[in-house]
Amino acid sequence: MTPNPHADAVPLVEIHRGPFLESLHHGHAVICDASGAITEAWGDPEAVILPRSSIKMIQALPLLTSGAGAELDSRRLALVCASHQGAAIHTDLANDWLASMGLGEADLRCGPQWPDDRDAQAELITSGEKPCQVHNNCSGKHCGFLMLNQHLGGDAEYVRPDHPVQRAVLAAYEEVTGETSPGYGIDGCSAPNFAASLKGVARAMAWFASAGQRSDTMSRAATRLVAAMHQHPDLVAGEGRACTELMRAMDGVVIKTGADGVFTAILPQQGLGVALKIADGATRASEAMMAQLLIRLGVLAADHPAALRRVNHVIQSRRGIEAGLIKTVEGV
Amino acid sequence: MTPNPHADAVPLVEIHRGPFLESLHHGHAVICDASGAITEAWGDPEAVILPRSSIKMIQALPLLTSGAGAELDSRRLALVCASHQGAAIHTDLANDWLASMGLGEADLRCGPQWPDDRDAQAELITSGEKPCQVHNNCSGKHCGFLMLNQHLGGDAEYVRPDHPVQRAVLAAYEEVTGETSPGYGIDGCSAPNFAASLKGVARAMAWFASAGQRSDTMSRAATRLVAAMHQHPDLVAGEGRACTELMRAMDGVVIKTGADGVFTAILPQQGLGVALKIADGATRASEAMMAQLLIRLGVLAADHPAALRRVNHVIQSRRGIEAGLIKTVEGV
Repeated sequence: MTPNPHADAVPLVEIHRGPFLESLHHGHAVICDASGAITEAWGDPEAVILPRSSIKMIQALPLLTSGAGAELDSRRLALVCASHQGAAIHTDLANDWLASMGLGEADLRCGPQWPDDRDAQAELITSGEKPCQVHNNCSGKHCGFLMLNQHLGGDAEYVRPDHPVQRAVLAAYEEVTGETSPGYGIDGCSAPNFAASLKGVARAMAWFASAGQRSDTMSRAATRLVAAMHQHPDLVAGEGRACTELMRAMDGVVIKTGADGVFTAILPQQGLGVALKIADGATRASEAMMAQLLIRLGVLAADHPAALRRVNHVIQSRRGIEAGLIKTVEGV
Repeated sequence: MTPNPHADAVPLVEIHRGPFLESLHHGHAVICDASGAITEAWGDPEAVILPRSSIKMIQALPLLTSGAGAELDSRRLALVCASHQGAAIHTDLANDWLASMGLGEADLRCGPQWPDDRDAQAELITSGEKPCQVHNNCSGKHCGFLMLNQHLGGDAEYVRPDHPVQRAVLAAYEEVTGETSPGYGIDGCSAPNFAASLKGVARAMAWFASAGQRSDTMSRAATRLVAAMHQHPDLVAGEGRACTELMRAMDGVVIKTGADGVFTAILPQQGLGVALKIADGATRASEAMMAQLLIRLGVLAADHPAALRRVNHVIQSRRGIEAGLIKTVEGV
């Protein structure tokens, strides 16, 4: 077992209710510039994390650098980088893509998942159907894996850690984080999720942020992916979700959430990359901290409704009575 | 603003994924005996918490000690102490009770809430209806408030902190915790939720655990409430929920979850009370820690499926691949 990566986590997000500090979230956050240098950090930049879905744009790189996805439009590229909520706009896109490859739902290896989208839930319930693998929030990423796999000629079990698809992902991951990954965990979608230091993930995001200034194959792939995510915030997550709402509230900034309290950001105009991990894994805290960092970096208005749903957020009772506040600690 | 009650929280619950410690939950836990003495503690027993729904059996005491609820059967008493998931067994019971008082849904002040029960969700979706206040997980508690209010003759706004109903709740709360409450927060159901030290809450649970040995009015009320919760674990929460599953797995032990990482337990045979608070508010951690403490106290089998869904729990991918483990830290 690895040592405790959260020993040096610091208080980041406070949950207040009435006059009481009800709950407190610790974590780590790192901001890197295009040179890979840390410009600001909270907690331990060396903390080793599983970045989960926050690095889907990295997992998508081999799809483009291999040439397999050369003809993909921006909608499919956005879906490759998505943790979507299984709404029709997401599942229709995934189904069309599978069909265009001569494949179907059964070729996916991500497993079935109930969609978070209320309309999609209602449709399943009223039709008496069960959710399928296309509803899985990672189905776009897996469509990308399947397309890459057709190009590489690997066997059907493309989520196996030693499969050519995942070897290609690891090579790209190690290149952009600048680290040798110390290992992997199996993600909720059954694909390996490679570990890195938080600093390494932030460095990778800064590399994405500055990709437009470079002309190598990998940087051009990164530029296409960032543009696609920016162009289709609704495909990257869905209505009401932090990634979608906050990207719409900003100009050109791309952000991506990951399970268990991870969040990343790519700021092309500033050439900055951000990565944060809430030590306890809470999404409410990763969203609050990311929103505050985006405000701090001058790319998100503190009074934008999408920001106020995440940080300096007034908690209400179910009758709308003001009950508490979610905020970051002083100084962030 | 009050000082940080979580400064001395200690690591309690670990989330492992592959070889990595992915996330870590800190918190506090206290076990008290019938004399009110602490027998074991982790973290800071003096930590001031908002106990949320974990003390609904305390909020129910005035309903019985006043005589208002003298004729209530055990099913309604269990519902008063419940955080239910809005299944038909819960909402039918609440609706019947409201009707028997000559009242209706509009008299509740808990606010509407989407039920967690999948069948209830399906029914609302297929009928095109919205959830109402009866679906609120606290609607049983509020039925009890309404019945007490009819007895006390207070005005309709029974959730006001200075309303006779809430004054009666506070008096009972301070008596059984042995503390003067330092204040309150507004709960999700709009009722005031009075603060106490974790030690005070554990002491109150030990008082409930030993109530059967005493014959005063308040202890007799406590005995009825504990018996009702024990008799109807399905009404206290619902199918699949920790309180329901774990109470069914034990003999006579009553447990109750609360929002933002609180959990309490009443062990009548041992005369012990337990209270715990996860500092970051995570339910997955409060459930794991409570299950482990119940195993430690010899009332829950470590290999019972209901236990293994909470602690030493194998995290699986959506295709059923073993991905990680939820466990408590060594020594708990």
